[in-house]
Formats: sequence, structure tokens, C-alpha cells
Amino acid sequence: MYRNKTCGELRLSNVGEKVTLAGWVQSVHNLGALTFVDLRDRYGITQLAFNEDAAEELKQTAQKLGREYVVQATGLVAERYSKNKNLPTGEIEIIVETLNIVNESLTPPFTIEENSDGGDDLRMKYRYLDLRRPVVRKNLELRHKFAFEVRRYLDSQGFLEIETPILVNSTPEGARDFVVPSRMNPGQFYALPQSPQTLKQLCMVAGLDRYFQICKCFRDEDLRADRQPEFTQIDCEMSFVEQEDILQMFEGMSRHLFKTLKGIDIPELPRMTWADAMKFYGSDKPDTRFGMKITELKNTQKDNASQELVESIFPECFQVFDNAAYIGAICCEGQAVYTRKQIDQLTDFVKRPQIGAKGLVYARVEEDGNVKSSVDKFYQQDILQVLKEKMGAKAGDLILILSGDDAMKVRKQLCELRLEMGSRMGLRPKDKFSCLWIVDFPMYEWSDEEQRLMAMHHPFTSPKPEDIPLLDSDPASVRANAYDMVVNGVEVGGGSIRIHDAKLQQKIFEILGFTPEQAQQKFGFLMNAFKYGAPPHGGLAYGLDRFVSLFAELDSIRDVIAFPKNNSGRDVMLDAPGVIDQVQLDELQIALNLKTDE
Amino acid sequence: MYRNKTCGELRLSNVGEKVTLAGWVQSVHNLGALTFVDLRDRYGITQLAFNEDAAEELKQTAQKLGREYVVQATGLVAERYSKNKNLPTGEIEIIVETLNIVNESLTPPFTIEENSDGGDDLRMKYRYLDLRRPVVRKNLELRHKFAFEVRRYLDSQGFLEIETPILVNSTPEGARDFVVPSRMNPGQFYALPQSPQTLKQLCMVAGLDRYFQICKCFRDEDLRADRQPEFTQIDCEMSFVEQEDILQMFEGMSRHLFKTLKGIDIPELPRMTWADAMKFYGSDKPDTRFGMKITELKNTQKDNASQELVESIFPECFQVFDNAAYIGAICCEGQAVYTRKQIDQLTDFVKRPQIGAKGLVYARVEEDGNVKSSVDKFYQQDILQVLKEKMGAKAGDLILILSGDDAMKVRKQLCELRLEMGSRMGLRPKDKFSCLWIVDFPMYEWSDEEQRLMAMHHPFTSPKPEDIPLLDSDPASVRANAYDMVVNGVEVGGGSIRIHDAKLQQKIFEILGFTPEQAQQKFGFLMNAFKYGAPPHGGLAYGLDRFVSLFAELDSIRDVIAFPKNNSGRDVMLDAPGVIDQVQLDELQIALNLKTDE
Repeated sequence: MYRNKTCGELRLSNVGEKVTLAGWVQSVHNLGALTFVDLRDRYGITQLAFNEDAAEELKQTAQKLGREYVVQATGLVAERYSKNKNLPTGEIEIIVETLNIVNESLTPPFTIEENSDGGDDLRMKYRYLDLRRPVVRKNLELRHKFAFEVRRYLDSQGFLEIETPILVNSTPEGARDFVVPSRMNPGQFYALPQSPQTLKQLCMVAGLDRYFQICKCFRDEDLRADRQPEFTQIDCEMSFVEQEDILQMFEGMSRHLFKTLKGIDIPELPRMTWADAMKFYGSDKPDTRFGMKITELKNTQKDNASQELVESIFPECFQVFDNAAYIGAICCEGQAVYTRKQIDQLTDFVKRPQIGAKGLVYARVEEDGNVKSSVDKFYQQDILQVLKEKMGAKAGDLILILSGDDAMKVRKQLCELRLEMGSRMGLRPKDKFSCLWIVDFPMYEWSDEEQRLMAMHHPFTSPKPEDIPLLDSDPASVRANAYDMVVNGVEVGGGSIRIHDAKLQQKIFEILGFTPEQAQQKFGFLMNAFKYGAPPHGGLAYGLDRFVSLFAELDSIRDVIAFPKNNSGRDVMLDAPGVIDQVQLDELQIALNLKTDE
Repeated sequence: MYRNKTCGELRLSNVGEKVTLAGWVQSVHNLGALTFVDLRDRYGITQLAFNEDAAEELKQTAQKLGREYVVQATGLVAERYSKNKNLPTGEIEIIVETLNIVNESLTPPFTIEENSDGGDDLRMKYRYLDLRRPVVRKNLELRHKFAFEVRRYLDSQGFLEIETPILVNSTPEGARDFVVPSRMNPGQFYALPQSPQTLKQLCMVAGLDRYFQICKCFRDEDLRADRQPEFTQIDCEMSFVEQEDILQMFEGMSRHLFKTLKGIDIPELPRMTWADAMKFYGSDKPDTRFGMKITELKNTQKDNASQELVESIFPECFQVFDNAAYIGAICCEGQAVYTRKQIDQLTDFVKRPQIGAKGLVYARVEEDGNVKSSVDKFYQQDILQVLKEKMGAKAGDLILILSGDDAMKVRKQLCELRLEMGSRMGLRPKDKFSCLWIVDFPMYEWSDEEQRLMAMHHPFTSPKPEDIPLLDSDPASVRANAYDMVVNGVEVGGGSIRIHDAKLQQKIFEILGFTPEQAQQKFGFLMNAFKYGAPPHGGLAYGLDRFVSLFAELDSIRDVIAFPKNNSGRDVMLDAPGVIDQVQLDELQIALNLKTDE
């Protein structure tokens, strides 16, 4: 070893020991006769001291050190005169006796510090330097620990980690596949798995009982911000279970992770139906760190989220509300101080095309209990008092109201408004965690594009047994044995109980519009396997990158990934993808066929 | 849960408990009034009993059960009248009260038993049924435990598991890459990694200090038996280390694995130089479960394996030996009983084209100490006695001699002969383990095909410091800081100390025949990274599939892989690879270009 101690471990109790450290030069401070060097490794920073009475050659070597030089230093641990309380090693320094420059370094293109001066592109190009920043490195350390604790928990529960192949076949439903031409099977392609869904179900047919895998998955999608073409999933499946068993098992895992990695005891996870989540939060992944639930002020249509009609609290006189099918509102505690300008900003916010509201109605509850509103030319104070009561608002509160023709659309707008207000009001601190299960998802959602019912989860998801009779009469109202785990408004995982009965599966395919032949062609290998004694089974999958980024209290998943790709799917450090040789194309028996009009 | 106990856990102490089990019907025995069903799950087999006095309907249900039906049974645990000592649950049975057929099964295409009647192809097509066989399932359980213990050990030693990307760029040296067309970057391709070699070195440049990863690697090679296009590697790298540190660290890992998984305390790993391995075993992966080392009887040339010349013990009179550059022999203890016919078989064995020897000379040491040989018409008994003494042979031993023009070729032939004799003599039991390090590999090997020196390991491998002066004068004799771990004649892992000095790296590229421009083009991103303070580093990688199959005492890696591919790279269960739509080809802007003459 080039060292016998790391830069993170020496304390006052080590004073007098002769040690050898190795690491990178963080900084050099020349104070005339004295030179100090901060030496950094993965474990910390330790100060090297070159004293007045040090050999001239040694002092000269120290003075010519540049940032990020790799050095090895031997010397005695000494108590520091001026201690640094911010560093665990800040009470000691090394009085260097020998110094060996192991490798030099060019001046790095950005500073290797907590707050780097490097932009995103530069940081990604020199990711190996970016990763030297403790703030980035800590995320990878957390990711390692997270994955390890997942394995420790699942192993203790009898799960087997089974590796499924990466070179598989094209999946029939879902996003676009990445494909790999097969040289040995000319004209044929492997696909990279979007998830090991069918393979893990085959593991259950194989009697492996409890499967998991932390595995790479691939989707060739146009990348929105914070998506990666390859991502990592914690994929799990269990046999002979009902929904309750899965919820218990993975609630246990979350508890284990929060406890061991964050030192937090999370309470029992509340369960919210999909319908309630949509009704009260306008989202199937509500951020429950704060309340500010949606109140329905008018609802003229029944849908999956709300079976109860709500008569408008407003008498007919304001066309916008009179014509709306749905009116909903949130109450923002203590925000009556919002100025007209701030309200205008909020109005602009909800009118942005991504949100799409037509306008925003507000109502302030004043100190004397009176309500002042943007619509008080239409409504008398007694009506506004009904509003106040309905919203549970008190003096100083601000009520924000949206309305429209489509309840579901307005709910989603209210969701965005609620999240915005939550952020503005400081109700979404990253170090507070609120976890819950969303259950009772609908089996299907209507696709305007395809003009048919689509599986909301995937076509192997089991309906709730009590809803099976509805499959014939009212399939759109059938609920699934599907569930998501939501943390701070982020869906970290989700899954379902699967169908294990071939006849029920056939019926589901019919509803999805497949002929028996199409079903056989697309899902044949799984359907065949199900003929040989498929056990009842179910599971779920977590997005590891996302879950870790929540634990790391980051907004983006990028910094929990060692070598992420940019929004064009490029690794700018490796400069991948790249062109390949004609020889290689010929061997694969494919040719480029580039569109010339692009 | 469909059960409250598994089929593997009930014992006499559970008698009287009411339990519910779920699993697969292994077999049904109808004994007139009594019916017994063996119920199987991952954890074991438990006997269900349907007694004379059971309800008629229950008995009828039991009698119509077929093999591999999935059932759920509730009843009382009772002591068995006729106990089965071969089963951990063999002392009890369940007196069934309710029986629920959860799923039916077609008759499986082969028996789900230790020794299946299914051929390889059928087993692979129905891999989900094959995996129900306990003998196959145990391998996957072992693999899970193996990987978990690797992680536990490395975590305890401060290693971080860092995921590196699967969509990378084409590697400059090595086997053929699998490639993935990039839709977002038309005309460009990702490559799947043959190993994360350069990425793990970048992790060291990034200061991550101790990296590991259990990861998929990919090679598009024509598949020999027991190779897979995707395979799993335990990939490791450490900074600020010398060779000795790596050997100690990973010897520790092996010790941990043997101890926790096999209950075996392995002794300290011997270290053998590559030269000695070639000289005494004719292989860089010697099977040291047994001795039978090669003795040089004549060696007229110096080479990397042997710097000492050996004058022939045979006087000139037998042309084959007279003209040979090298004569080597092994002594097979107690095998003088070999008949002429058996010797002929051995002669055929070494003359097979895969081995390529011209012939085989033998010498038997008889009870009286006299030596009888196939060449005793050329040599007097006194010469044969010298042979006997040189070989350390005693009465009853059989000496086998090969000779030829090329010492290295004959050594390899002797290696094959030695392994064959070891197998015949029962000296290679699968439950005995002999581990060692092979060290001091040559840096280069001459390629007849390319007519140049090639890197034996890879071009980033560091030469031994004391051999650096030879880089100019005699590069072929330079030894590398490279090492392999060998277990029972199988190379389970290998690695090297890497070059961290840009100038030395440049020199190595020159010797390999790269111009500075070519080196920059091929290895630029790594070379650039090395300009910013690369620490000394080194590592190694284990083949997980191979290592686990040794622990599982299997000949093939296939049965430690859940879903392996066949020799054409096909997954016959998934029927992958397959054709893809024209739409997909168009999106990727590629076209098929199938050779018509095939």
C-alpha cells in the first residue's frame, strides 16, 4: 500500500504516530516559511505541514505542488495550533518528513469543491473529476449502501437474487425497445429488457417462490429531463401471496431502508385509494408532506375518482362557474397577504400551456372574517361565507379556485397549483419524508389515441376479485389489484397481483382488443408456461435511481448515477454512441439507411 | 398468504398443529382407501394424507390431482406411520381437511425429478419447468448466496459497488462487440461492454478508491461449449495498492467464500510464477489437486518458461528423441498395470488433432525395479534406470514421455495427458479444492497472425518495475504485474496493476505498434483522464458463472445461469433473437443487408 492511514481517520489520539498518507492535493497555502497542504482522499482531508526547519528540498517540493497532484507523504501526527472544527481531522496535522509526487495533474477545468464552478456539460465531460467532489461522491456511497441494504433485507426474507438475461426478445407492449443485431442469427435482433416482467413471472412458474433483482432496464424514449435510456430497477416477485402480503413485505423494506440509512422511523404507511388520491390531490402520486387538500365546490359528473355529485355552492350568475362541470379549490393557510401581483403570477403559472387552466379565482379571508374575492362582484358576502366554511378557511387564509369542463383535467391543474403553493410556503422540505400506498387503481384507462381501453399497469395485472363481474358490464370501472408506493409526491415503486388463471387472462386480452391468435403470438411463451401449474403471484418494482435521489435529497437522478447520459442519450465523457466500421456492419449483415431529408 | 407454513419446515414437534400449505403436486399414490400426495415447493416436500374417513368429495378431489397441479391444503400435522428418513419432513404428514385446486397443469414434457428424462433442448425450452427440479434450483440458490457473500465481504473492506453503464462505446482491443443502433443519434451505435475495464479505471481517477461491481459483460464470439454471449463478472479495482495488496485482499475474499458457503478452511494460497506453471504443468492454470508434475528430460532452447537448458538423458540413437528440441515426461503412480490396449488408447488421445502429439513413449517400472519401455530396443537398462531416477519413479509406476520441436507445444500436450491421467486415477474429485495464484505473467506474447507483440493481459497492465529497463532491449522477456487466481485448473479470476504514468503508457503503446495518434484515437478518453492526477491502481475480475459452477461442483456453467443461451446464442425459451418490424428498422435508420450466398 502507498499509505497506512487514510486522510479521514487521524485524530488527537493518534498524535505522535508516524503515518503515511496518499491522496490528492486539494490546496497549497504558502505562508512564507510555512507551507500547508490539504491532502484529500475518499475518506477526508488531512493537513500536511512543512515547517520552517524542514529540509530545503522538501519545502521546495511542497511549494511546487499543484492542485490535484497525487502525493504520498510520511510524517508524525501532531496537534494543530489552529484547529479546524469543521473537519473531523481538524485537530491534527502531519509534520511531513518525506514527500513523494506520485503523479502530476494539469489544472482541472473546474474547481473540485462542494460548489463547483463547472457547468453541467463540463462536469459531465470530465465526470471523473466531478466525482472527486465530496458532494457527488457521497451520493454514490449512499447508492451503494442503499442497494446493499435492499439486498440484506430481501435476503433475510428468503428472496433469491436471480439474474435474468439482458439479451432478450422484443416486449409486446410498452415503450420502444433498444435492439441488438445478432451476427449468428442474421436478420434477427435481440431486444434489451424494458423490465424483467415476464421473466420474473416465469421464475414464479418455476417455483422459485421469492425473486428479486437489482437490474438494468432500457427504454428508447425521447428523453425528458431526468430520464435515462438505461436505469436501474429493484425488481421483486413473490408466489402464493395476496396484495396485503406484498404491501406488508415492502413496507418492511422501506422501513428498514429509512431506519438504517437515514436513521428515521417512518410510521405505518397510510393507504389511499386511487380515487381519493385523484379527488383530494389531483394526482396518483400525492405529496402528503402537507395537507391543503382539494375541496370539490361543484361536480356534475360521476367518474372513477368521484362517484358523488356535488351541487355547486355558487348560485348561477358567474358564467365561468355556471358553465363549469367541476369547481375545486385549495385553502392556503396564512397566505391572505398575497399581493395582487403575486396572485397574477400564480394566474400566469396555472395558465401556462403545461398546466392549461383558463384562469384563477381567489378569495382572501380578512382579519375580520370577511371574504374578499376576485369574483365578489358576482357573489354576495353570504355566499362567500359559505365558501369560507366549506373550505374550512380562517382569517388570514387564501382560497384558490379552478374550474372547467373536465373534472380530471381541473384536478390535475389544482394538483400543480397545490404543489407550487406548498413549495412557496416551505411545506416540502427535502429532509421530511411522507410515504404512502396508493391502491385500487383502475384496471383500464381509455386511450383517445388508440380509441380503446388500455391496461393502466400491464395486461398481466389481476382485477380485484369482487370487480370481476364488472368485466362484462362495465370494464372501465373495474379496479385492479395494483399498488404504488409514493414518497413525497414521487412514485418510487409500483406493482400488482398478476393473473395466474389462463381463462381470466384470455378475457382480459379480449377486453384489450386482442384476438386469441394475437394474444398467442404476442404473449405465447408466457401463456404456455401458465398451462403447467402457475402459482398465484404478484410483485413490484422500484426505480432505484429515483428512490436513492430522494434519500440523497436531490431533485435530479443524475447525480446518483456514476456515468449518466445527457438528454440526447449521449455519454459525453466516453463520446458514445459512435460510428462503427463497415466490416462490423457487414458482419452483422445490416446497412445504414440514413434519411437524407434530415 | 395462501399458506402459513412451507413444505420444508414441519417436524415431529409440529404434530397437532393446524397448517395450510401450498405447492405443486410431485406425485399421487392411490392405495385403495388411502391417498397420499407429495406436495413440493422451493423449501421441500411434505406428504398430504387423505384417510379412509375423509369426506368423499375431498377424496375425489385428491384422486383427480395430476402432476404439477398447484394446490392449497389445510389439515393437522400428524406423525407418520411409515417414516421417510430421506426427507427432513419425512416423520410427519398432513391429515388434509380442505383441499383447493389453485391451478391445473398439463402433463409436463419431462419428469420434474433429480434425474430428469428431458434432453438438453427440451429442458431449455421449458426452462421454467426444469428450474423446478431441486438439483437445478439449488444452483441458483448457491449463486444468490455466493453473490451476497461477495458483496458482504467487499462492503466490509470499504469497497463501493458502482454501476457503470451498459450502453457504452466500442472497446478498442479485444473480442467482437455487440452493438446497439442509436435512434436519437442516427448512424451511430452504442456497444455493450466486454468488461467495465476503462470505466473502473476512471473510477480510480475519480478517487473512489475501492470499486467493485457484479455486472453483465458481453462478447459476440462464436460460442464454444460452455461460453455465453452474456456473462457475469465480479469486477474490482483499488487505488494506492501494489500487487501484494490485491493478492491479500482477494485471497481473503476466497477464504470468506469457501468458509461461509462450503464450510471449508482453505490454506494460504501458494503463488506460482507463470514460468513454473508452464514448466511443471504445461498450463497457466494448473490443476494442483494432484502432483504428477512434468519433468524435463531434454530442453535445448531457452524461453520465458524455462531459462535453464537440460541436456538429454538419452544418448543419441532414437531419431525421435535425438531430433527433439524438448522431451518431457510425467510419472503416474501405481499405473504400471496399464495394458498395451490402455496405452494405445492414451496414444490415440494425445494424437487427436486438438492435442496434436506425434506419439507417446511409455516406461513401466516393474516389481523388481527393472524398467520396461516402448523404446527399450534403443536404450539399455542403465539409461532407463537414469530415467527412473530422474522421474522419481518407483516399482509399479508408469512414465509417459512426449517430445517435439517446440517446448511450449509439448508442454501443453503433457498438460492434457496429465489431466487425463489425473481423471482416470480419481485424483480430481469435485469436492476437493486447490487454489493458487499464478504471478509474473509475461507482458507480451508474440502473435503469429498479427506478426507483432500483443498484450497478454491488456495494454494498461504495468510491467514489473525491475523489468522496465528490458522494455527497450528485450520486450518479450518483460514480466507484468499481472496475476490469475486458479482453482482446480480453472482460471476463476485475474487482473493486474495498471500503468498510472502517462509516459510509461505511451512507451507500452509504442511497443504494441501504435503511433501516438492511434493511441490517442483509441484510448484518448482514458489517456486524457490520466493527465489529471491518476493514482496508482490495480484490480481484478472474477467470472461469477465459472466460480459458482466450481462451488456447485458442476462441469458446465449453464446450470448456474437461470436462463442460459444455446451455442447459437439463442434463448430457445423466449425464442430470441427474432425479427423486428420494418417500422422499427426505419426508426433506427438501418436496413437488413443479408448475404444471399448463405
